Amino acid sequence: MASPKIAVIAGVGTGGGTGAAIARRFANAGYKVALLSRNAQAVQALSDSIKATGALAYPRSGQSDSIRVTIWNVGEGIFSPFLDVTEEELQKTVDTSVFGPFGFARESITTFKEQELDDQGSRGTLIFTGATASLRGNVTTSAFASGKFALRALSQSLAKEFGKQNIHVSHAVIDGVIATDRKYAKDDNPDEVLHPEAIAEAYEFLTRQHRSAWTWELDLRPAHGKW
Amino acid sequence: MASPKIAVIAGVGTGGGTGAAIARRFANAGYKVALLSRNAQAVQALSDSIKATGALAYPRSGQSDSIRVTIWNVGEGIFSPFLDVTEEELQKTVDTSVFGPFGFARESITTFKEQELDDQGSRGTLIFTGATASLRGNVTTSAFASGKFALRALSQSLAKEFGKQNIHVSHAVIDGVIATDRKYAKDDNPDEVLHPEAIAEAYEFLTRQHRSAWTWELDLRPAHGKW
Amino acid sequence: MASPKIAVIAGVGTGGGTGAAIARRFANAGYKVALLSRNAQAVQALSDSIKATGALAYPRSGQSDSIRVTIWNVGEGIFSPFLDVTEEELQKTVDTSVFGPFGFARESITTFKEQELDDQGSRGTLIFTGATASLRGNVTTSAFASGKFALRALSQSLAKEFGKQNIHVSHAVIDGVIATDRKYAKDDNPDEVLHPEAIAEAYEFLTRQHRSAWTWELDLRPAHGKW
Amino acid sequence: MASPKIAVIAGVGTGGGTGAAIARRFANAGYKVALLSRNAQAVQALSDSIKATGALAYPRSGQSDSIRVTIWNVGEGIFSPFLDVTEEELQKTVDTSVFGPFGFARESITTFKEQELDDQGSRGTLIFTGATASLRGNVTTSAFASGKFALRALSQSLAKEFGKQNIHVSHAVIDGVIATDRKYAKDDNPDEVLHPEAIAEAYEFLTRQHRSAWTWELDLRPAHGKW
Repeated sequence: MASPKIAVIAGVGTGGGTGAAIARRFANAGYKVALLSRNAQAVQALSDSIKATGALAYPRSGQSDSIRVTIWNVGEGIFSPFLDVTEEELQKTVDTSVFGPFGFARESITTFKEQELDDQGSRGTLIFTGATASLRGNVTTSAFASGKFALRALSQSLAKEFGKQNIHVSHAVIDGVIATDRKYAKDDNPDEVLHPEAIAEAYEFLTRQHRSAWTWELDLRPAHGKW
Repeated sequence: MASPKIAVIAGVGTGGGTGAAIARRFANAGYKVALLSRNAQAVQALSDSIKATGALAYPRSGQSDSIRVTIWNVGEGIFSPFLDVTEEELQKTVDTSVFGPFGFARESITTFKEQELDDQGSRGTLIFTGATASLRGNVTTSAFASGKFALRALSQSLAKEFGKQNIHVSHAVIDGVIATDRKYAKDDNPDEVLHPEAIAEAYEFLTRQHRSAWTWELDLRPAHGKW
Repeated sequence: MASPKIAVIAGVGTGGGTGAAIARRFANAGYKVALLSRNAQAVQALSDSIKATGALAYPRSGQSDSIRVTIWNVGEGIFSPFLDVTEEELQKTVDTSVFGPFGFARESITTFKEQELDDQGSRGTLIFTGATASLRGNVTTSAFASGKFALRALSQSLAKEFGKQNIHVSHAVIDGVIATDRKYAKDDNPDEVLHPEAIAEAYEFLTRQHRSAWTWELDLRPAHGKW
Repeated sequence: MASPKIAVIAGVGTGGGTGAAIARRFANAGYKVALLSRNAQAVQALSDSIKATGALAYPRSGQSDSIRVTIWNVGEGIFSPFLDVTEEELQKTVDTSVFGPFGFARESITTFKEQELDDQGSRGTLIFTGATASLRGNVTTSAFASGKFALRALSQSLAKEFGKQNIHVSHAVIDGVIATDRKYAKDDNPDEVLHPEAIAEAYEFLTRQHRSAWTWELDLRPAHGKW
């Protein structure tokens, strides 16, 4: 019997946003999902809620050959005037957008390289979550955009280096506010926010692309968004 | 009974490339497909081959309310040193990348505006086929890139203007050589060419996105491509 | 005695804008200036005002060997909702942003190729005037941005193709409203408009760059502009 | 008597490259130059060689009101396959492209904000040195491009935030190999390398732009370079 496919999702936050929606989506699609978060309680609650599958801890040894999808969905949305950016905020930016994703990518790619091709010709898919600030620095995003630009550079370098080894690396530019449990009750126009489930659907699509036509980057934004 | 969904595809060439694959894909997904080409014989042959559905002529009047997808897949791949570009080539560039798509978009959007929302919240999807030359001018692409840049500008303007009216406009950057009937027997490394079917799959995905997370632009390239 | 250097400027409008400022700048820098405009009266008035030098008609034959700078400063600022763009506006867009500049570039480069290197290692400099719409399509710029994107593609292709022949091609992105005689009396915040003289200074700088560090593209915008 | 203008240049390397050429250029233009380098010996040698002016240590207190130009020319050119990038290299990347320039910019802008306008309407100019890797990640530049992308984001954010306060922030994309003392004896085609002096000229031009037409970004590359 085929070993189960595993999707590793780093950054499920408090369980009400994109990471959680991605986890549910891949669980519904038959993946075992491994969740990473700084918030253990959130991971537990989300795991409990994914009834049909159960969340696995990241299998760092042993059956690593079945990890087909890894997703870096971690970020610190720091929005401050430049002179107010603290050293701590800068360190967080670097941790979540340079050190963290470099380590995560290293594990992902090292794992993928050893795996068999799936029926789309892929050894695995690594997806990074970007933002408006991945493409444009702005007046309150000196730190945030620095991190998101860096992450985009990493994703592009990896896509070019490992495509030849049949490893798919993608970057999704989330260009707008995401509707989360926290925020959705707010006064946001529901037509101007992204639904986490719709983002998750795009991520799953990326993992199903045939090797002859892979997407590195796509943007995602609400129909009524201003850009 | 619901009226049939129609997909209009402009640019099916000689029937062995992207346009034809898109037509087959949408036919398989339950669309009636309307094919536009300067090559009537190719349209006929392709229509014949789409057994299950039959190709409809573009319904310029009457039941236009059921056109859900329109695709501008027309282009002239002119690759010449600048001083060799002829007036005729320039005129072709302008016809296929400015005049043609402006007219096609006008018809598409005028039609979409009158339609009901589908279950993703969309009144219709208009997709433009771009190329490597949509993003970079190069030594033999003064004409080709001028046209493709212009087409990309049109698509972005439309996406911004009509998103608010729940009309989805997308631009696909095909970054590589497409495997066609003509070319596939060649010495191209099969891992370095795009399969038309894989492109068509991405196009269909775009039409299924929920309105809260629409993609304007995505790139598509073979895993082993150099970029 | 060295033959005089000539700068050819296409697009001097009504004589109160960027083209005129460029003409004066190069005249002050010792160039003979040749002015091209659809408005013969404006050319005459501007010529008269350039006392110290006098404007030459474009020398299409004979002493072409001394044309060192050519500038395409022509554009049609069409700002309309997409469905209001007329065929005539589209034709103007194509004339000023494709056919016109292709012809202008052909003459420029054909001339430059025959010339001696100057003391910066250049055979000549061809500059195109771009705009905000060179980089972004927006809700009222489907036509304008299509033209400006096309022009940018041309300039990049030429820069790549003819750099090797020591011909310098540049593209200036004017990202804001230009203070002209017509507009300057308006209620524009003087800190939010570009002075034509400052643009002209940048253009002249481009012509003085050493061949080892040429600029293809630079942006120019007022310090207080929002972007 | 007017207090002397000071240009602070961070990153003069071993004294034979861009930083040194910039220092000489600004010294020749009448600036006192303050040099920062991890290599104290190089600073001393370069200072000695700038006879006419003498290099000042960065005046962290006191007469800070006369610093008109600050330049961040520091970078670590790390070119490694992704899986070979070490933690140390990543830390260096972050130090030279995030922590370092954030601190440098903080000091620069804090200083500039208190200064009078010069005759171009500027309180000071801050320039960052970018690279090809500022715009594109590539197969051996996962770390380098991450750093350079981050630096570009910082520069764009600052340009937007502080333009309104009449502070000019620029980013120069050096798209090619720079001819340095170390490298110039090599087999590089002299037409395919950038001369540090030509780069320095562009930097000085940026500091002389009038406030109504500031450049955030320009590219610089050799005429014969392939891009």
